[in-house]
Amino acid sequence: MSVSKKESSKHVIRIKCQDEIGLIHKISNVLYLNKLNIIRNGEYVDNESNQFFLRSEVEGTLEELVVISNLEKILPPGALIDLKPIQKKKIVILGTKEAHCLGDMLIKHQFNNLNAKIQAVICNHQTLGNLVEKFEIPFHCISASGLERTEHEQKILDLLDTLDFDYIVLAKYMRILTPLFVEKYPNQIINIHHSFLPAFIGANPYKQAFERGVKIIGATAHFVTNDLDEGPIINQDVIRVDHNYSWRAMARAGRDVERTVLAQALEMVFKDRVMVNKNKTIIF
Amino acid sequence: MSVSKKESSKHVIRIKCQDEIGLIHKISNVLYLNKLNIIRNGEYVDNESNQFFLRSEVEGTLEELVVISNLEKILPPGALIDLKPIQKKKIVILGTKEAHCLGDMLIKHQFNNLNAKIQAVICNHQTLGNLVEKFEIPFHCISASGLERTEHEQKILDLLDTLDFDYIVLAKYMRILTPLFVEKYPNQIINIHHSFLPAFIGANPYKQAFERGVKIIGATAHFVTNDLDEGPIINQDVIRVDHNYSWRAMARAGRDVERTVLAQALEMVFKDRVMVNKNKTIIF
Amino acid sequence: MSVSKKESSKHVIRIKCQDEIGLIHKISNVLYLNKLNIIRNGEYVDNESNQFFLRSEVEGTLEELVVISNLEKILPPGALIDLKPIQKKKIVILGTKEAHCLGDMLIKHQFNNLNAKIQAVICNHQTLGNLVEKFEIPFHCISASGLERTEHEQKILDLLDTLDFDYIVLAKYMRILTPLFVEKYPNQIINIHHSFLPAFIGANPYKQAFERGVKIIGATAHFVTNDLDEGPIINQDVIRVDHNYSWRAMARAGRDVERTVLAQALEMVFKDRVMVNKNKTIIF
Amino acid sequence: MSVSKKESSKHVIRIKCQDEIGLIHKISNVLYLNKLNIIRNGEYVDNESNQFFLRSEVEGTLEELVVISNLEKILPPGALIDLKPIQKKKIVILGTKEAHCLGDMLIKHQFNNLNAKIQAVICNHQTLGNLVEKFEIPFHCISASGLERTEHEQKILDLLDTLDFDYIVLAKYMRILTPLFVEKYPNQIINIHHSFLPAFIGANPYKQAFERGVKIIGATAHFVTNDLDEGPIINQDVIRVDHNYSWRAMARAGRDVERTVLAQALEMVFKDRVMVNKNKTIIF
Repeated sequence: MSVSKKESSKHVIRIKCQDEIGLIHKISNVLYLNKLNIIRNGEYVDNESNQFFLRSEVEGTLEELVVISNLEKILPPGALIDLKPIQKKKIVILGTKEAHCLGDMLIKHQFNNLNAKIQAVICNHQTLGNLVEKFEIPFHCISASGLERTEHEQKILDLLDTLDFDYIVLAKYMRILTPLFVEKYPNQIINIHHSFLPAFIGANPYKQAFERGVKIIGATAHFVTNDLDEGPIINQDVIRVDHNYSWRAMARAGRDVERTVLAQALEMVFKDRVMVNKNKTIIF
Repeated sequence: MSVSKKESSKHVIRIKCQDEIGLIHKISNVLYLNKLNIIRNGEYVDNESNQFFLRSEVEGTLEELVVISNLEKILPPGALIDLKPIQKKKIVILGTKEAHCLGDMLIKHQFNNLNAKIQAVICNHQTLGNLVEKFEIPFHCISASGLERTEHEQKILDLLDTLDFDYIVLAKYMRILTPLFVEKYPNQIINIHHSFLPAFIGANPYKQAFERGVKIIGATAHFVTNDLDEGPIINQDVIRVDHNYSWRAMARAGRDVERTVLAQALEMVFKDRVMVNKNKTIIF
Repeated sequence: MSVSKKESSKHVIRIKCQDEIGLIHKISNVLYLNKLNIIRNGEYVDNESNQFFLRSEVEGTLEELVVISNLEKILPPGALIDLKPIQKKKIVILGTKEAHCLGDMLIKHQFNNLNAKIQAVICNHQTLGNLVEKFEIPFHCISASGLERTEHEQKILDLLDTLDFDYIVLAKYMRILTPLFVEKYPNQIINIHHSFLPAFIGANPYKQAFERGVKIIGATAHFVTNDLDEGPIINQDVIRVDHNYSWRAMARAGRDVERTVLAQALEMVFKDRVMVNKNKTIIF
Repeated sequence: MSVSKKESSKHVIRIKCQDEIGLIHKISNVLYLNKLNIIRNGEYVDNESNQFFLRSEVEGTLEELVVISNLEKILPPGALIDLKPIQKKKIVILGTKEAHCLGDMLIKHQFNNLNAKIQAVICNHQTLGNLVEKFEIPFHCISASGLERTEHEQKILDLLDTLDFDYIVLAKYMRILTPLFVEKYPNQIINIHHSFLPAFIGANPYKQAFERGVKIIGATAHFVTNDLDEGPIINQDVIRVDHNYSWRAMARAGRDVERTVLAQALEMVFKDRVMVNKNKTIIF
């Protein structure tokens, strides 16, 4: 681990610890003594669990290990401290056949609006290969055909092991990940679910929504945990539908919502604005 | 039943029948021969069940029984025909302790914006009595204290038998109605549920929403059937919340949505714009 | 003009005429005599101008000229009748440098979700050329550099004359079209404006919105007329912003709205669901 | 001015000053030395004007003048410091004839959900007198009939001079206030405007919206300044409309939005969550 002397730059500091009086005072004191300017600050206390959460964007010349060490000294035992420079994330995208979320990310990627570098796209079908390759991103088709679930997943895990990434984005990846997979990447897998969770968990939510006769449909971006569609919600949005919508029309209209909900969630995650608090998120 | 010769006036005709080619032609022919001007027309075909739905606002001098008889002759057997003058509805409101939906209706009622006449308000607590009586509306407190569910309900049913009304509005009535009650008033009972159904069915949905960490909460107005919170949905809306909302803050913010969602639903129902198609609604 | 005997297929009939009693009866009679099944029907009467608007989706074997001739006989003089098969539109896209609306259309086009065939993309900068060519769509860069407005436009008009299209989509085309151009394509040019019109007409609406301190920003898709940003509005939507948004952050967030508002507007226009009523639209 | 020793209680501290490095450190130090626990903290820096804004909710035993004096010592010259206990506000409501916003406030007031005490309602018509008096709130009708604008306003000002209040709420008060009036109560007058500002400034915005053919209408709550409908915006919201809406139908639908937008704005203002930054608001 290197202790590098950095140029003045922007960092994000995120702290989670037991709440106690004077935390902001003590933390801001550390930042002050390290000559760091606070650009943007967010705090939250979960009164139920008595946990304190803080996110600070700071600017200045900073030695990461020194600051972390200073913070450790003044924070309660067990405090989690995350300090990193503000920079682009690296991601791997998993998909199946639908192009709308993936396509949006590829376009933003090309025009430098994604705030992330796409390292690879992995799909269980060939459908999207031609699209991905247009953008000169490595495309890997790992078919699940004829394979046990764990065999198929192992192939993906083996491939992931060769890649360097911060997050895995499930851009309408239509297979359920096993606990083994999910536990390997805690709070690193982001999924877009095509319903307003917790309504319509599971398969074909638009058909479920149609059958129920709802007047609004939605989409939910969340971190993946081992409870199906129950992970911490990052972002949600909805649109109105009426009795003239077949479930296919709902699915078509829903795609625009899915794409935007995922795009906004990724924007927040990639800027380190999201902290996980048990099965919920705090968005600073 | 009287066959009265009416002055020129506005009526709503609603038809539900098996779909077949030429229905609009045949129906519009009947209206034409009765010298009725179509002001507004809405049609819908449920392709799954092959049912045709029509709502026509017509203007002219009209003998109700003649028009109905003319329509019966040209419609497929089993057609449901509903023809009524456009006029204010009569309603009874059931409540418990919360004032926001009831209060909104009372204010609109006084200033002639409700499109309905409130015949009575029945509550299982005294809390809202003072408010209702300010507006010179009969208030009946029927306490459930010490009574079996069916006993309590029978008292309400007995009172309802003495009243003249088209719809029962559950304005945050916090008790579940028995099948006996519900079946007596099919498609006549309108409830406001304080969640975006089908998410968070049942008790304390705001607490459920808080526990789940959703980013959007909502409200649903629906006809009451014997499946709890599963009746045909008339209207829904949502608002954004974030991690700073306690469940009580969600409940407080949710009240504004509940009130508006119910108000809009009642506006549609009272104008005869809502038709029920199995467990869904068609809004013309 | 050929009078072809067609196979059974779907058509859209749109009628605009003076309102009078019995129109629906007479029109449905024509459709009935031509053995056409009405799949979906929409009517509207503008009471101010006493104009009647109808859109019918019909199914059956149909001779276009016969049906039009039958309709002309029963409609008031001056009636506008538009009858066409339901089919994909042909479009030309004009752009400048921003990729989000164009990119969305290219992706949908490749996966057959656009309901239109993109004949060409014309830009006044090279920026988007690489993207368009990935999708094997003809790209034409017609630079305005060093040209008078009319000279530049004439070059585009000359190119358009060689192309076969139903609509021109301005996908963030950042130049104002001259009256000559606009009048040549009445109700055929669709623009996406990056504000909630009529707020913030003209240049840099996000900067205007930022200066004004609004809490909601939006986008508007409209037909282009010779009144700047004043043409008939097809679709609008909004998102919430707060004091933390710089005008650049507003612009970034706004892009997702622009893209969705334009996509929904195009969906409606390409399905012939939009009729123009002076400076407004009727959406069936 | 009394320096009272208080019991442990909750206060809001709001600071506006020139930005400089270490402000949060210095401020939190003052709070720490005064043994105050920070419950909720919000900061914002306006980079254009280099102004720092802070809102802190603190808990503890506090001598107001001591804390203010301590803060003055460590803040840059010219800093504005506002420290007050969290408590209900006192308000006066001005209205004309429309009941929906006023009615909502009266109902919330009775059930202790307004977070304010209504000291009086002043109207230029008698229409709402009966409603207000039901709730045992003083009602004053000051007719403008036959009076010059300044004469009428002077009568209201004279009355206001006899009343004790923090804010004046214009609940659909349909007269324009003169500069004299507005300047007397800076950032104390809150208006609800029935359009999505800055669209449709001035008279009858629903008619303007109807004429323009917009697909969304809205409402705006703002502080009143001497630029008509140009004061700092506190809250906005919108609803969808379509071609079937007459302007009267828009006005009717808009009322539900007006009421909710005003209610939410008041909730924020009464909790001291709103700070004014030139012609904008910061909502903590």
